[in-house]
Amino acid sequence: MNDATGRARSVGIQLAIATLAAIAFIFLASRRAENRVHERAEDQIRTVLSDQVAAWNRGDLDGFMAGYWNSDELVFCSGGTITKGWKPTLDRYRKRYQAEGKEMGRLTFADIHVEQLTNETALVRGRWLLAMNATNPNGLFTLKMVRFADGWRAVYDHTSASEPK
Amino acid sequence: MNDATGRARSVGIQLAIATLAAIAFIFLASRRAENRVHERAEDQIRTVLSDQVAAWNRGDLDGFMAGYWNSDELVFCSGGTITKGWKPTLDRYRKRYQAEGKEMGRLTFADIHVEQLTNETALVRGRWLLAMNATNPNGLFTLKMVRFADGWRAVYDHTSASEPK
Repeated sequence: MNDATGRARSVGIQLAIATLAAIAFIFLASRRAENRVHERAEDQIRTVLSDQVAAWNRGDLDGFMAGYWNSDELVFCSGGTITKGWKPTLDRYRKRYQAEGKEMGRLTFADIHVEQLTNETALVRGRWLLAMNATNPNGLFTLKMVRFADGWRAVYDHTSASEPK
Repeated sequence: MNDATGRARSVGIQLAIATLAAIAFIFLASRRAENRVHERAEDQIRTVLSDQVAAWNRGDLDGFMAGYWNSDELVFCSGGTITKGWKPTLDRYRKRYQAEGKEMGRLTFADIHVEQLTNETALVRGRWLLAMNATNPNGLFTLKMVRFADGWRAVYDHTSASEPK
């Protein structure tokens, strides 16, 4: 093997190493970006929820519903009933809280836990409390939230109420 | 550049291509393996649930509880109450279904949907029905299931009951 061959072979090995290094760099950079996304996601999700509470407490059901995926595939489970779709879910809220003789009460969310499952999905759980004139219904919720281009939205909601004492 | 240099340089480029090809192969092979895991996961999860139903219906609460993560971090939400830990969850079931004057009834799960979120996690929802002597309580459940070395287990359960008519 002459010098030129040796040099060229060494260039080849350097090429292979450079390829691996570039791939490692891209991998690590994407991991770092992912971690930043995870950190930001919880804040964004909590903002969606507090926006929902603010909307509810000014009697703005459409604003409240902005936290849900506006799709026929939205699934809303409450007690023993499954409601499918954004519009039927809005109608359910209207019937229960804005119909004649109904009141919306003052909503609070508490004990919120956000667990990021992937970059695009999170499981969120918490407690809801409605302060009304006569009663104070309350209970738990579990949400699957998905990150869309315009932000995080609940695509699945399982809500339950405390059993009356 | 002499022939030997050209050959060595070409060997170098071949090395780089081979490295990329090997990485692409490993990536594709792992994706194929992942798809197989996803396909098998739903069957495995459904088996865990049907084993739970079978255990319940032979009055075997410990067998039923085998479907849950045996950990202090298990979270069981029902109505407005959060129970933490495997043992407290078992105790809750004992108190509600095996205490003096209680009956376990005959359990059925229906409308089960399994959504795999990652290789190791799935969101499962369905309907539960208990056929008892006097009443037939029923409602919905949402589970987060995780794949452990010994199989899939519910690490989170949100269960709710239909409101009495």
